[in-house]
Amino acid sequence: MSDTKKYAFGMIGLGVMGRNLLLNIGDHGFAGAGFDKDAAKGQLLEQEDKNGNLKGFSTIEPFVASLSTPRAIMMLVPAGKIVDDVIAELTPLLDKGDIVIDGGNSHFTDTNRRVEYLEAQGFHFFGMGVSGGEEGARRGPSIMPGGDKKAYEVMKPILEAISAKAEDGLPCVAYCGPGAAGHFVKMVHNGIEYGMMQLIAETYEIMKNGLSLDNERIGKIYEEWNEGRLKSFLLEVTRDVFKYKAPDADHLLIDDIKDEARSKGTGKWTSQVAMDLQAPIPTIDTAVAMRDLSKYKALRVEAAELYGKAETITAEDTEKVIAELEQSLYFTMIISYAQGLHLLTNASVEYKYDLNLAEISKIWRAGCIIRSQFLYDIYNAYTNNPGLQHLLLDAGVAKLVNEVAPGIRSVLSKTVAAGIAAPAFNASLSYFEAFRSARMPSNVIQAQRDYFGAHTYELIGKEGTFHTQWVPKKTE
Amino acid sequence: MSDTKKYAFGMIGLGVMGRNLLLNIGDHGFAGAGFDKDAAKGQLLEQEDKNGNLKGFSTIEPFVASLSTPRAIMMLVPAGKIVDDVIAELTPLLDKGDIVIDGGNSHFTDTNRRVEYLEAQGFHFFGMGVSGGEEGARRGPSIMPGGDKKAYEVMKPILEAISAKAEDGLPCVAYCGPGAAGHFVKMVHNGIEYGMMQLIAETYEIMKNGLSLDNERIGKIYEEWNEGRLKSFLLEVTRDVFKYKAPDADHLLIDDIKDEARSKGTGKWTSQVAMDLQAPIPTIDTAVAMRDLSKYKALRVEAAELYGKAETITAEDTEKVIAELEQSLYFTMIISYAQGLHLLTNASVEYKYDLNLAEISKIWRAGCIIRSQFLYDIYNAYTNNPGLQHLLLDAGVAKLVNEVAPGIRSVLSKTVAAGIAAPAFNASLSYFEAFRSARMPSNVIQAQRDYFGAHTYELIGKEGTFHTQWVPKKTE
Repeated sequence: MSDTKKYAFGMIGLGVMGRNLLLNIGDHGFAGAGFDKDAAKGQLLEQEDKNGNLKGFSTIEPFVASLSTPRAIMMLVPAGKIVDDVIAELTPLLDKGDIVIDGGNSHFTDTNRRVEYLEAQGFHFFGMGVSGGEEGARRGPSIMPGGDKKAYEVMKPILEAISAKAEDGLPCVAYCGPGAAGHFVKMVHNGIEYGMMQLIAETYEIMKNGLSLDNERIGKIYEEWNEGRLKSFLLEVTRDVFKYKAPDADHLLIDDIKDEARSKGTGKWTSQVAMDLQAPIPTIDTAVAMRDLSKYKALRVEAAELYGKAETITAEDTEKVIAELEQSLYFTMIISYAQGLHLLTNASVEYKYDLNLAEISKIWRAGCIIRSQFLYDIYNAYTNNPGLQHLLLDAGVAKLVNEVAPGIRSVLSKTVAAGIAAPAFNASLSYFEAFRSARMPSNVIQAQRDYFGAHTYELIGKEGTFHTQWVPKKTE
Repeated sequence: MSDTKKYAFGMIGLGVMGRNLLLNIGDHGFAGAGFDKDAAKGQLLEQEDKNGNLKGFSTIEPFVASLSTPRAIMMLVPAGKIVDDVIAELTPLLDKGDIVIDGGNSHFTDTNRRVEYLEAQGFHFFGMGVSGGEEGARRGPSIMPGGDKKAYEVMKPILEAISAKAEDGLPCVAYCGPGAAGHFVKMVHNGIEYGMMQLIAETYEIMKNGLSLDNERIGKIYEEWNEGRLKSFLLEVTRDVFKYKAPDADHLLIDDIKDEARSKGTGKWTSQVAMDLQAPIPTIDTAVAMRDLSKYKALRVEAAELYGKAETITAEDTEKVIAELEQSLYFTMIISYAQGLHLLTNASVEYKYDLNLAEISKIWRAGCIIRSQFLYDIYNAYTNNPGLQHLLLDAGVAKLVNEVAPGIRSVLSKTVAAGIAAPAFNASLSYFEAFRSARMPSNVIQAQRDYFGAHTYELIGKEGTFHTQWVPKKTE
């Protein structure tokens, strides 16, 4: 090592997220070292660094030695076994009291395990969700740390500096809670993201096949929507996508992209955990199911032969349907957030995270993929009522929802009649209709279960469980 | 031990299922011993045994000693730790070559673990699903064994004797496949059951709130439906439930039952595994979500205050809507089966179960909770085409589905407009509409993912993955 400068922050993994986050750290005047076995990535880091604050390493020992102590090292590597491999390689080189941060999308149960393992060895460890994609990492992400609070306090100045800032200037980083709380919050963020992406895709489906609009028109509609209450990063993305022409062609690039969506698992994890916690999030479940269904291209093509195509909406008035669609997207975005936040409310109790949903919605207002104008309303709702049990029970939110509910009922009654697929739209509306049911038809299910399985049932206004012999037992 | 008689079959756990299954075994001339720590259950067994073939034990040593060797012992105890506890207590008393059967609803991953553990000790072990509830266990259940095939062959005469028989006289038991195949098939059976129960509950919701029909009328409709193509055990149950008056009252018992449905986990497991296997089953997911939502009674009551109630269907013609509802239930029952079977097709590949769906639908035709007239159509579909990749791709099934698709689109367009909750109905129709989409809108999702996360996308007709810089990078 010829370089005797000591770096305040170390990054392991110089892929898209790690490199850009480190460049962001460098921009804010912190000296940072990056490590990636692929030497080209370290070189790219140094090329892109305009401040001379950053240095790339392709071997781990000099990287660790270059850091000022106590060391602060973040991993941004793919979730799973690789994280454990990095920890195994790294920890023999560390001193007690060093801080290790997992900034990737680790499953929260893995993070729980690593908290225990690393703390037992005297290291400070915290799991931290980072959202914002490439551009967010570079210019200001939303950051969701959890775990070792003292270690977070040490890192706070750097993290606040590099994070996104909301319209009121507040940084989009806050301590989420103990254990794996940071990764759990980030996972649910991604689940909401799955929901919103599927919902936007369905507006495209309805406008394209239901209303026979062309891409140019659809793109303009997204642009208009994004200038109103729907303003959000994902609509901004979609607006831009609808401007991008295929190379050397007169049509949009999206027309050439396969209709088979991939996924990296965080949406699925959200749905699976929600089922364990019995916190229903059907909009997100449906988004996961539709990504999966999209992969069965050959079966779908075969089914189209047997079952024909959807009809167009026999619209009295296309403009009216477009207006209703805007209302529907607003309605379903609210439902997506509400489901995700309700899951967090349940997780907070079950896992003792003591989550502060005002803080969480505060740090989602900028930088992250699900940032939107509406997150300011959510922040207000939870700030005014920290004990709010469900976003839909906030009076201000209820007012907004009631305004647009007739619109989504109207447009979905048309898409259903025409045979147009809008699964997440329907799941969101169905969830809402069931949620506002003071009495669900679940009494019938209880009776059925008791009939065939003697599982017993409960009675209104009576303690205990009961069993009935619903029909006389057969005798021979 | 004063009793020197040797018993051919041993049952551990004399609850509703275990006791009735053993009585069934006794009815068929086999000598059976039952063990339950609760001595009252063994006494009840002997009281109910009219053939003198059965004996109850409340300590395990004499129970094991009473069995002829090689022993055949089935456990019918609650899934989870209790199964492991029973195995730990039992195995020291066994000889190599004895057969142990887990007849409960164990999670298939637990069964995998136990197969390995018990085989290593020289025991024959197989996991076996048993469906039919109390009455099925007593008179003839559907039985889904998997695992040790040689051990199954030993048990086959007893199992075929006690199983239900379909209309063609074939027994409702067949070897499903290696490892945990039997428990996996039973789990998916239960998932389908969750779906069908929720769908029936939604017909009640629509008829009660949408059409303002009274219970008597609704009960008669279920009775009529069950006499046609919808004929099924669950409709038979529902018909009977709609005849049962509350004690000393003039209304039905279901009116007094809480609208909070409980569950024991098999539906949830089905949904969670389906997500791991990327085999979408949104009807079942929705049924699970609605059981969970039903538990949030206090929130729902509060929401009803904020959001009001559903409207009735402004039906031109109530009879027409009822006819469409019958078509809708038929449609969605088919979708439930199709999703469950598609999950089995995927699991068969992933877990190397080599499942025979003709055999599986054959043994579901009688005895089990999801038995129905339509299962004969499913059996025919898979018998005619053993390689069928999805039930909806069978031409015969397609004909049936196409007949009723207009009916469900019509009725759901009305319930959606009226604000009536019918989540599993909508999930089933949405799944179908997406499944018949030769092109889904998932290309937009791929573009979004590449835009913000550089996740790349695939192009139609080109190999490889691609990345686009969708908007110029920001520079400072």
